[in-house]
Amino acid sequence: PFLTAAMSSTEQSPSPPLTNRSAEVRRDAIFDRWVLISPARARRPSDFKSHSPASSSASGNPNPKPSCAFCAGREGECAAEIFRVPPSSSADWKIRVIENLYPALRRDAEPPDPSDGLAAAGTGRCAVTGFGFHDVVIETPDHSVHLPDLSPEEVGEVLLAYKQRIFQLARLGSIKYVQVFKNYGASAGASMAHSHSQIMGLPLVPPLVSSRLDSMKKFYDMTGKCSLCEVQSEDILVCDTVHFFAIVPFAASYPFEVWIVPRDHTAHFHEIDHEKAVDLGGLLKLILQKLSKQLNDPPYNLMIQTAPFDLSTSCAPYTHWFLQILPHLSVIGGFEIGSGCFINPVFPEDAAKILREVDCS
Amino acid sequence: PFLTAAMSSTEQSPSPPLTNRSAEVRRDAIFDRWVLISPARARRPSDFKSHSPASSSASGNPNPKPSCAFCAGREGECAAEIFRVPPSSSADWKIRVIENLYPALRRDAEPPDPSDGLAAAGTGRCAVTGFGFHDVVIETPDHSVHLPDLSPEEVGEVLLAYKQRIFQLARLGSIKYVQVFKNYGASAGASMAHSHSQIMGLPLVPPLVSSRLDSMKKFYDMTGKCSLCEVQSEDILVCDTVHFFAIVPFAASYPFEVWIVPRDHTAHFHEIDHEKAVDLGGLLKLILQKLSKQLNDPPYNLMIQTAPFDLSTSCAPYTHWFLQILPHLSVIGGFEIGSGCFINPVFPEDAAKILREVDCS
Ligand SMILES: Nc1ncnc2c1ncn2[C@@H]1O[C@H](COP(=O)(O)OP(=O)(O)O[C@H]2O[C@H](CO)[C@@H](O)[C@H](O)[C@H]2O)[C@@H](O)[C@H]1O
Ligand SMILES: Nc1ncnc2c1ncn2[C@@H]1O[C@H](COP(=O)(O)OP(=O)(O)O[C@H]2O[C@H](CO)[C@@H](O)[C@H](O)[C@H]2O)[C@@H](O)[C@H]1O
Repeated sequence: PFLTAAMSSTEQSPSPPLTNRSAEVRRDAIFDRWVLISPARARRPSDFKSHSPASSSASGNPNPKPSCAFCAGREGECAAEIFRVPPSSSADWKIRVIENLYPALRRDAEPPDPSDGLAAAGTGRCAVTGFGFHDVVIETPDHSVHLPDLSPEEVGEVLLAYKQRIFQLARLGSIKYVQVFKNYGASAGASMAHSHSQIMGLPLVPPLVSSRLDSMKKFYDMTGKCSLCEVQSEDILVCDTVHFFAIVPFAASYPFEVWIVPRDHTAHFHEIDHEKAVDLGGLLKLILQKLSKQLNDPPYNLMIQTAPFDLSTSCAPYTHWFLQILPHLSVIGGFEIGSGCFINPVFPEDAAKILREVDCS
Repeated sequence: PFLTAAMSSTEQSPSPPLTNRSAEVRRDAIFDRWVLISPARARRPSDFKSHSPASSSASGNPNPKPSCAFCAGREGECAAEIFRVPPSSSADWKIRVIENLYPALRRDAEPPDPSDGLAAAGTGRCAVTGFGFHDVVIETPDHSVHLPDLSPEEVGEVLLAYKQRIFQLARLGSIKYVQVFKNYGASAGASMAHSHSQIMGLPLVPPLVSSRLDSMKKFYDMTGKCSLCEVQSEDILVCDTVHFFAIVPFAASYPFEVWIVPRDHTAHFHEIDHEKAVDLGGLLKLILQKLSKQLNDPPYNLMIQTAPFDLSTSCAPYTHWFLQILPHLSVIGGFEIGSGCFINPVFPEDAAKILREVDCS
C-alpha cells in the first residue's frame, strides 16, 4: 500500500490507486519554503506504536459523562469571560470567549516601547515585556461535541466569535497581529479535550507572517498577480463553495495539508460577513469530516493566516488571508527543525484526489 | 512546583529554587526569531497522558534480547554500506555509515539545473528533481547501547564519521549543504530504536540556513562581532571544556534547549580535528546524561548547524557552526506553526542553573 497505516482510514479498505512518481523538491510560493515530496518514505518500518485516534487519546475521566472546566455549569472554574454567544447572561450559552488561565502573554503588562526592540538589536540579548492577550474560545458547552459535529451555521458562529474578538483587539492599538489557532488531539498539542480554540493578540508581527507577506510580494512583483488568487487548479482541488475553495497546496509541507481560501481577494479574516462565515463553516465542517473519515480521526492544527492590523495600501494587492489545516500523521524530526525543509511522503495531487473522493453524505 | 512533572527528574525530588519573573518576549540573534518566555504556562493542567521516557516507548520486540536490521550480524537487511569504522571488512565494526533504505532524496536522480528553480519562481509551481543523499549512521552495533553510553572517544568517533561523510559529499560538487541530525525517541520522530543518526546531502541551501546566516550577518554589520563568539555568559553556561562551551541560549525556543559552541571561530563542522572531536564527544555525552537524569530520559533532536559548502570569504567573519540539542518536553501547537514564535515555559537562566547542578559523576 502506498499510504502507511496511519494515513489510510482502516486496515481493511484498500488504498486508492495513486500516481507512482519519483521524489521531487517543491517550493511553496506563499511561505517560500521547500518540501521534499518522497513517496518512498511512506513505506519505512517503525519500532514505535502508531498514532491512535485523537479522540481516544484522552487519559481522561473514567465517568460515563466526563466533564471539565470548559463544560456548561462549571463556568466558575474558568478565568474571566470576555463575552458569550448568544450575548445574554443566560446559562444557555453556545460559545464562550474567556481569558486563558495560564496565559503565555499578560494583558496587564506594559505594552513594549516600539524602540525597545531596536535598542537591543545590536546586543546578543533582546527582550521586551511579555505584553499581549491570550484567550480561549469554548466552541460548545458540551464536552463530547467536536467542531465538525456542529452545523454549518454553528461553525459559522465560532468564526464570527473570532471576528468579534479580533475587532476588540484591533481597537486597542497596542496589538499588531492576532493569531487564531486550534489544537485537536494530544499530539497536535491539545491539553484540554473539550472542543476549543485560542486567540493570541501579539504586540509584534510574528516572523512567519512577515516572511509570508514578503514572499507573496515577490510573486506579485514578478507576475502582477496575487499568489493565492492564482493557486486554484483542478488537480489539487478538494471541494468548493460559493465563496471559498479548499485545496491541498502544490508544495504541502504535511501530508493531507488543506488550505481553505476565499475566492474574493481579501487581506484580513475579520472582514468576513455572516453569509460568508456560514459558507466557510459548512466547508470547514466537510473538510474536517473528510480528514477524520479518511485518516482515522487524526490530531490536527488549524490556523488562520491573516494580515497585520496596520497594512499599508501598497500591500493590499498581494495580501490574501486563508485557513490552514494540518493533520498530524508524521512527526517533525531533526531534519525539519534543522533545515526548515519538510518531508512529505504523499504527493499533494494524490492527497487531493483521495480527499475529493471521501464521501461524507 | 515550577516545573511540570515531565520537566523534573522524579516526583520526589523537589525542584530547585528558581527566579520568579514574569513573562518576557525575547529575540534570538542567531535565528532571528521570537520566543515567549512564560513560566505561568508550566502550571496548566492536561487531559492527556504525559510523556513516558523515550527508551521505554518502543512497542518493540518482547524478546529478552531485541534485535533489528541495524544490529551486528544483520547487515544484509540494510541498504548498501558506504563505509565502516574501523575501515576493515571485519565483522567487529563500531560504526557503520549506510544508505537509507527509504530515502527522502535519491542519489541516482539528475542533479537539478541551477537555473530550474529560478525559471519557475514566477509561477505558482516550482519543482526540481528529488536529487540528493540520505544516509544513516549506525552509532553502535549493540541494540541496547545509546549515544551517552559510549565513551568520549567513541562519541568522538561518531562525530568523525560525520566529518568523513561530509568530505565525501563535498567532493561531488552537486551538494550545497549537509544536514546532520539525530532523532531519539518516538515523539522526536525516531522510527528506529537502535542508536543512529542521519546525514542528508542537499542540492540546495535550506531556508533556515540562509536566514540564520543573514541574521548573523546583520549582527556582525551592527557590532563588528560574531554573534556566537559573543554569546557565552555565566548565567546561561551549563559547562565547558578546552575547546567548547555548552549554554542554554538566552532566547531558547524549547525548554532546556542546549547549544554546544566551539570556542574557535570556525564556519564548518567538518573542519573539526581528532582532538576536538574527542573533547566534543565528552561534552556531548555529559549534556545528554544531564538531560536524561534531570528530565527523565526525554526524547530529543540533535542538529549540527553548519555552513553551506560554498561560502564566500566575506561571510567568514560571522559564520560559526554549533550543535543544537532540543529535548521534547512540550508539543509544537497551532500557535508555533502559525506564527513561527515559540512559547517556552522555563527561563533559560533557570534551565542552565538546573543543568549545571545535575551531578553525573
Ligand atoms: N480553567 C481554565 N480557564 C481558562 N483557561 C484554561 C483553563 N484550563 C486550561 N486553560 C487553558 O486552555 C488552553 C487549552 O489549550 P490547548 O489544549 O489548545 O493547548 P495548550 O495551549 O495547553 O498548549 C498547546 O498549544 C500551545 C500553543 O500552540 C503550545 O505552546 C503547547 O506546547 C501545546 O501543548 C490552555 O492554553 C490552558 O492554559
Ligand atoms: N534496513 C534499513 N536499512 C537502511 N535504512 C533503514 C532501514 N530501516 C529503516 N531505515 C531508515 O532508518 C531511518 C531511521 O531514522 P529515524 O528513526 O531517525 O526517523 P525517520 O527518518 O524514520 O523519520 C523521522 O525523521 C524524519 C526527518 O527528520 C521526519 O521527516 C519523520 O517525520 C520522522 O519520523 C529511517 O529514515 C529509515 O528510512
